[in-house]
Amino acid sequence: MFEAAEVGRKLEKEIYKAQVPVLRNELLEVQQQLLNAPFPVIVLFAGVDAAGKSETASLLNEWMDPHWILTRGYMDPSEEELERPRLWRYWRDLPPKGRLALFLSAWYSSPIRDRVARRTTNAEFDVLLDEITTFERALTDEGAVIVKFWMHLGKAAQKKRFKAWEKDPLRRWRVGNDSWRHWRMFDRFVAAADRAIRRTSTEQAPWQIVEGEDERYRSMVVGTALRDAIRRALERTPRSRQAAPRKKTRPADRLDSTLARVERDFNVLDRLDMSQRLEPTRFNEALERQQGRLNLLQRKANAKGISTILVFEGWDAAGKGGAVRRITGALDARDYQVIPISAPTDEEKSHHYLWRFWRHLSRAGRISIFDRSWYGRVLVERVEGFATEDEYRRGYGEINHFEEQLVGHGILLVKFWMHITKDEQLRRFRDRKRTEHKRWKITPEDWRNRGRWADYTLAVDEMVARTSTRVAPWTLVEGNDKNFARIKVLKTLADRMEKRLRK
Amino acid sequence: MFEAAEVGRKLEKEIYKAQVPVLRNELLEVQQQLLNAPFPVIVLFAGVDAAGKSETASLLNEWMDPHWILTRGYMDPSEEELERPRLWRYWRDLPPKGRLALFLSAWYSSPIRDRVARRTTNAEFDVLLDEITTFERALTDEGAVIVKFWMHLGKAAQKKRFKAWEKDPLRRWRVGNDSWRHWRMFDRFVAAADRAIRRTSTEQAPWQIVEGEDERYRSMVVGTALRDAIRRALERTPRSRQAAPRKKTRPADRLDSTLARVERDFNVLDRLDMSQRLEPTRFNEALERQQGRLNLLQRKANAKGISTILVFEGWDAAGKGGAVRRITGALDARDYQVIPISAPTDEEKSHHYLWRFWRHLSRAGRISIFDRSWYGRVLVERVEGFATEDEYRRGYGEINHFEEQLVGHGILLVKFWMHITKDEQLRRFRDRKRTEHKRWKITPEDWRNRGRWADYTLAVDEMVARTSTRVAPWTLVEGNDKNFARIKVLKTLADRMEKRLRK
Repeated sequence: MFEAAEVGRKLEKEIYKAQVPVLRNELLEVQQQLLNAPFPVIVLFAGVDAAGKSETASLLNEWMDPHWILTRGYMDPSEEELERPRLWRYWRDLPPKGRLALFLSAWYSSPIRDRVARRTTNAEFDVLLDEITTFERALTDEGAVIVKFWMHLGKAAQKKRFKAWEKDPLRRWRVGNDSWRHWRMFDRFVAAADRAIRRTSTEQAPWQIVEGEDERYRSMVVGTALRDAIRRALERTPRSRQAAPRKKTRPADRLDSTLARVERDFNVLDRLDMSQRLEPTRFNEALERQQGRLNLLQRKANAKGISTILVFEGWDAAGKGGAVRRITGALDARDYQVIPISAPTDEEKSHHYLWRFWRHLSRAGRISIFDRSWYGRVLVERVEGFATEDEYRRGYGEINHFEEQLVGHGILLVKFWMHITKDEQLRRFRDRKRTEHKRWKITPEDWRNRGRWADYTLAVDEMVARTSTRVAPWTLVEGNDKNFARIKVLKTLADRMEKRLRK
Repeated sequence: MFEAAEVGRKLEKEIYKAQVPVLRNELLEVQQQLLNAPFPVIVLFAGVDAAGKSETASLLNEWMDPHWILTRGYMDPSEEELERPRLWRYWRDLPPKGRLALFLSAWYSSPIRDRVARRTTNAEFDVLLDEITTFERALTDEGAVIVKFWMHLGKAAQKKRFKAWEKDPLRRWRVGNDSWRHWRMFDRFVAAADRAIRRTSTEQAPWQIVEGEDERYRSMVVGTALRDAIRRALERTPRSRQAAPRKKTRPADRLDSTLARVERDFNVLDRLDMSQRLEPTRFNEALERQQGRLNLLQRKANAKGISTILVFEGWDAAGKGGAVRRITGALDARDYQVIPISAPTDEEKSHHYLWRFWRHLSRAGRISIFDRSWYGRVLVERVEGFATEDEYRRGYGEINHFEEQLVGHGILLVKFWMHITKDEQLRRFRDRKRTEHKRWKITPEDWRNRGRWADYTLAVDEMVARTSTRVAPWTLVEGNDKNFARIKVLKTLADRMEKRLRK
């Protein structure tokens, strides 16, 4: 979930300087229109310490007209507040119609902290998160706009920032014992955050995860997202549209395309070290060792009734089939099934899109290998427009919920994205054309998909951001060298099985 | 919640016989149109044993074309099924587009049974219910229509039915040891059901509670509700509307008005024994005793920091003010506040409608008396059309969630509906007009409200059905005799406080 917010997205200083006045103008304009609108706007900042929550809130106050902004941070509840239900203090602080409120951590703070400190169980945590969902739904049902930003920093980046602050006389006070104590619990914090984000990302109040390392980038992302959320809400409101007709021309095109470029340029796939290779002799040795492990582990898993589900997604010609064969080669034929997923049948089309995957769940103790999967909804269906934006956005939550049920039932779920570079793909396509027995593998559709490389890259990046969860993480496989990729897949699978069997 | 399904609603045999052919025709017609529609219809029957779940499912198979109906009952999961996640067997059985499926208990069964048997805690139960909500939302998001009927019988009525079946050679097999064992756990079952219904009644998949005692009544209610649900869904679907244009004239008016009459004639208010009285001497004695208790109990509650919130709703001139004064008369002025609720202020209007009630929550240990309350949304706002149907329907869930938070925080919540008959109200209005110092109390609005007696009765009945929960039940007060009513209020309050203090 957070991998996609640790890719080092940043914005050049000159572009930032040139674009800030444009964005400020737009924000002031929507704020002005909001004053007459029949709904409030609630912005929530949560996330990792030092990722820029309060800085961004301050900046918005600077950029917009602070008279009409409420900014709320919360300390431990007062005696007065403890005497009322937990949400009381937030209800009190809700903005009236036409106003904007910036909430820092707020209602997410204590549920997450209590879970990190293990004062609550996962079930109790879920109940609190459910209470939050219901609270937010009550507000959005009455028209409120809720925009939630999760500001993220990787563990190393956070450490770096703390160290830098400790040396800065103006910021030294911000790094206390608590900061380092929290830092040591980083993994537990991220695990709780992962769960919270999964369970409270609703259609009406979705989370947006923002990489917080570069101040310019995160400020622009938050500013434009806020602008767009208010604009969309104003467009839905006939009354306010009449009250303040919006300008048709928007001078922001350059700003938006700049940000789009940053999203494209910095993504989880481009962070991979694609030069990794494995020499043939070392490969043969590793293959034998990993296949041996896998065979043994699967026999144990079978005896214990533990099922494994593998998901393979990736570019055309990235080596999915080859990797699958190295796995099945280590297994007893009765122990696995390979399920190739292509266009749905008529019967499947007449059901919910997840229905056909539910059907294929195997009995206990087996390995099911999905060659392409339910991720089609947020990949090909998104890119080709077979699913509407509403549908594929909803898909992330539906998929997470589906996978939670699998894992909750004790199934081991291992997901691989097989990655190759665009050049490598071209090389393989040409090779296939030349080789008789490989020619059937390449179709005009493959060439067409290749034309949408950038769109697919964005879709993969968002897929990883939204569905690489604690319970079902994605493994990104550097596939330019087939040997390296195959061993990485085998070893990852064997390691995960080993860990699962120890439980 | 279930009081409104224990009022003895029934339908006369002749009317039933005359109307069944009409309803069958309509059901067949919508079923025919459904065949070409791009969505499935999922009907869920759950509820108390012997309340007619399977009988109604059979009847629908008889009334409609059974070729296009899937009916699914579930035993304990098989070995095969246990090897997959809990919802697997229901996913498998989901109907394709254009079809109707009747599910008996299905995904609600084991969560409720496990809670009744105390194999799960409330938090674990909530997590399962949340899983169900997410599952149902995934289906309705893709267009499925979900209609859920909770078939109810009171404890006595269930016993009567079991006894009758035991004497009937054809039905004897249906009453086993399990039946009586379940019957003895009736209260626990109802408590779990109450929680399940509260947490899984969503806008897209709401529960309808059906009184199951009279076969004719329950069959008609289910049949018409199903017909209406399918019709509404067809109307939302442009494609199917073209495929099969619907007839403009509906011969069902008499059927629907008959059912509306039954709803009006049998309701929670009409079940009250309005002849109850208390003689003045006994009243004085009781008043002294109950006020003494209340004073003592409130001092204890205050010392322990336990707050109490009282809600008074009721007809104009039903004696709310008099009852409130008998309570405050027993209390220290520092210990309570009376909060009269009338039309919202401008500031209040600019917030969520619950905001003004959150504001008024007192510090720990106090009594807050709401003279009218948040129930305005589902009473006056519903009847006067200030709230749309969507808004007041959503209100039930919002109110339940609000009250759960109060009770969850340790607050004692006691809700009174002050009831008088229409004749008694007229007598009091006339009396007020005649008496100088009471004249201010009566306004033209009171006369106007009186004209909507039947609408208000329906609204009160539904309010009790949907918001009289285990955690915050309604007390209906027979108020034709003021003395009786005041003592009932005082005693109920003192009893509830006593019980709360014992916890």
